[in-house]
Amino acid sequence: MTAYRSDRKVRFEDCDPAGIVFYPRYFEMLNATVEEWFEEGLDLPWRELVLERRNGVPTVHIEAEFLAVSRLGDVLTFTLEVEKIGRSSAVLRVVAACGDEERALFRLTLVHFSNETFRSKPWPEDLRVRMGDYQTESVVSLGE
Amino acid sequence: MTAYRSDRKVRFEDCDPAGIVFYPRYFEMLNATVEEWFEEGLDLPWRELVLERRNGVPTVHIEAEFLAVSRLGDVLTFTLEVEKIGRSSAVLRVVAACGDEERALFRLTLVHFSNETFRSKPWPEDLRVRMGDYQTESVVSLGE
Amino acid sequence: MTAYRSDRKVRFEDCDPAGIVFYPRYFEMLNATVEEWFEEGLDLPWRELVLERRNGVPTVHIEAEFLAVSRLGDVLTFTLEVEKIGRSSAVLRVVAACGDEERALFRLTLVHFSNETFRSKPWPEDLRVRMGDYQTESVVSLGE
Amino acid sequence: MTAYRSDRKVRFEDCDPAGIVFYPRYFEMLNATVEEWFEEGLDLPWRELVLERRNGVPTVHIEAEFLAVSRLGDVLTFTLEVEKIGRSSAVLRVVAACGDEERALFRLTLVHFSNETFRSKPWPEDLRVRMGDYQTESVVSLGE
Repeated sequence: MTAYRSDRKVRFEDCDPAGIVFYPRYFEMLNATVEEWFEEGLDLPWRELVLERRNGVPTVHIEAEFLAVSRLGDVLTFTLEVEKIGRSSAVLRVVAACGDEERALFRLTLVHFSNETFRSKPWPEDLRVRMGDYQTESVVSLGE
Repeated sequence: MTAYRSDRKVRFEDCDPAGIVFYPRYFEMLNATVEEWFEEGLDLPWRELVLERRNGVPTVHIEAEFLAVSRLGDVLTFTLEVEKIGRSSAVLRVVAACGDEERALFRLTLVHFSNETFRSKPWPEDLRVRMGDYQTESVVSLGE
Repeated sequence: MTAYRSDRKVRFEDCDPAGIVFYPRYFEMLNATVEEWFEEGLDLPWRELVLERRNGVPTVHIEAEFLAVSRLGDVLTFTLEVEKIGRSSAVLRVVAACGDEERALFRLTLVHFSNETFRSKPWPEDLRVRMGDYQTESVVSLGE
Repeated sequence: MTAYRSDRKVRFEDCDPAGIVFYPRYFEMLNATVEEWFEEGLDLPWRELVLERRNGVPTVHIEAEFLAVSRLGDVLTFTLEVEKIGRSSAVLRVVAACGDEERALFRLTLVHFSNETFRSKPWPEDLRVRMGDYQTESVVSLGE
């Protein structure tokens, strides 16, 4: 019953000619957060997931809301929670905030996927259990 | 009453270790499509929009659905239509397809924004009129 | 005895907060130019090279000189010539210019490489012949 | 008389369809290393350099040698030393290694540059002194 948190500093390469984060870079930061969560939170590094098991977790649906601009040097805290765990999919919610100010909200659906058969496959049981540790009640109670 | 179309070939740099398009790259392709539409369809190159007028059109909301994987060398046709034009915002729909197969659907909201005041500002009238040329009835009739 | 030429417009995503091309993006443009040359000039699309033949052409050495800044909307012409063809390697020279102004010069060494054995392998004879079409005398005469 | 060191894990987004680091991503890692060095080693965050002082440190020349491939999950240590400090330029050497294995070598020239006049300008004296702390004798003795 906890959230996974990761800090990222907005780098020069993330910023556009207006001096603010170019929004596709947010998705790179988001993906890196999910990748880190698998490694540090779920004990399944993507090196093992992708190179050894020949599986992946492609994102099949994503919704993002950008509430305020982020600038070079801002430290963004990404907070990830699990909203729902299906047979071979999972819905995650991620908030990117700078201090108390929410900058971006994400809701994304991942699918456990075989890169050999190019089909979805059920989550391994141990992985599903570990993912459950990040399924917060507050999220569940939204009834979504 | 037309749609803007642009073809993009999936390049090596767009693909991940599974050999398929890494989803943040889709948002780069999408943004490049919007940028081209402004230049070729709306007659407002971003060089003028950003460097001369000191404005921008940041994306404030986006929803994406990834229906099928795309591979190195696939040619994706991005088709862009305007769903709604507000005072200082616009909702776009974009489909990325390879031949007859839809690969990804996007719905995004842009805001006309001053990079000096960091506030939204109304669309110039001539730009609004040109955007209207891409507002298709089929989209409007969805009542969204 | 010709050079391969390809135009690229500097896009919003290529530019940094100073409004000029962020130099790692030049290497993405350079790599895309090489990829296009293989497809259009050498008749070997990377889809075939990488996905079917399980080979690649990693860059093992590169030198770049950035002579003048490029800005959003500039059209850069990349001109590629072959300087030297080895048993399993090749040295290319690429100039990126905007009109008459040279912006960046590149000299890079590619190696024909097996992604299965992770070792270099000789160029196929037909590929070597086609590469020779882009080996210009002016370059050879530099004696480098 | 020390070197600046920074570790980076090879992420999914850094890797190409061959499962190894796509070389333009090395330049992004290199640039992030230089950016961190300015912040942590030279006490000049790029937020201040770029947004407040309206200066930058564009790379005008770079040479890179890629000695061995890097894979998803590898931890690369970037070690940065100053080879030479000029009036408004500096030559850096950076080695990227995984454990004892050198993967890539870089030699790059930065220029202190005004984003207002688009001309080079002398290093501020305090910055020059701090850069000198990273000028190692071993490098100087190479006489380059």
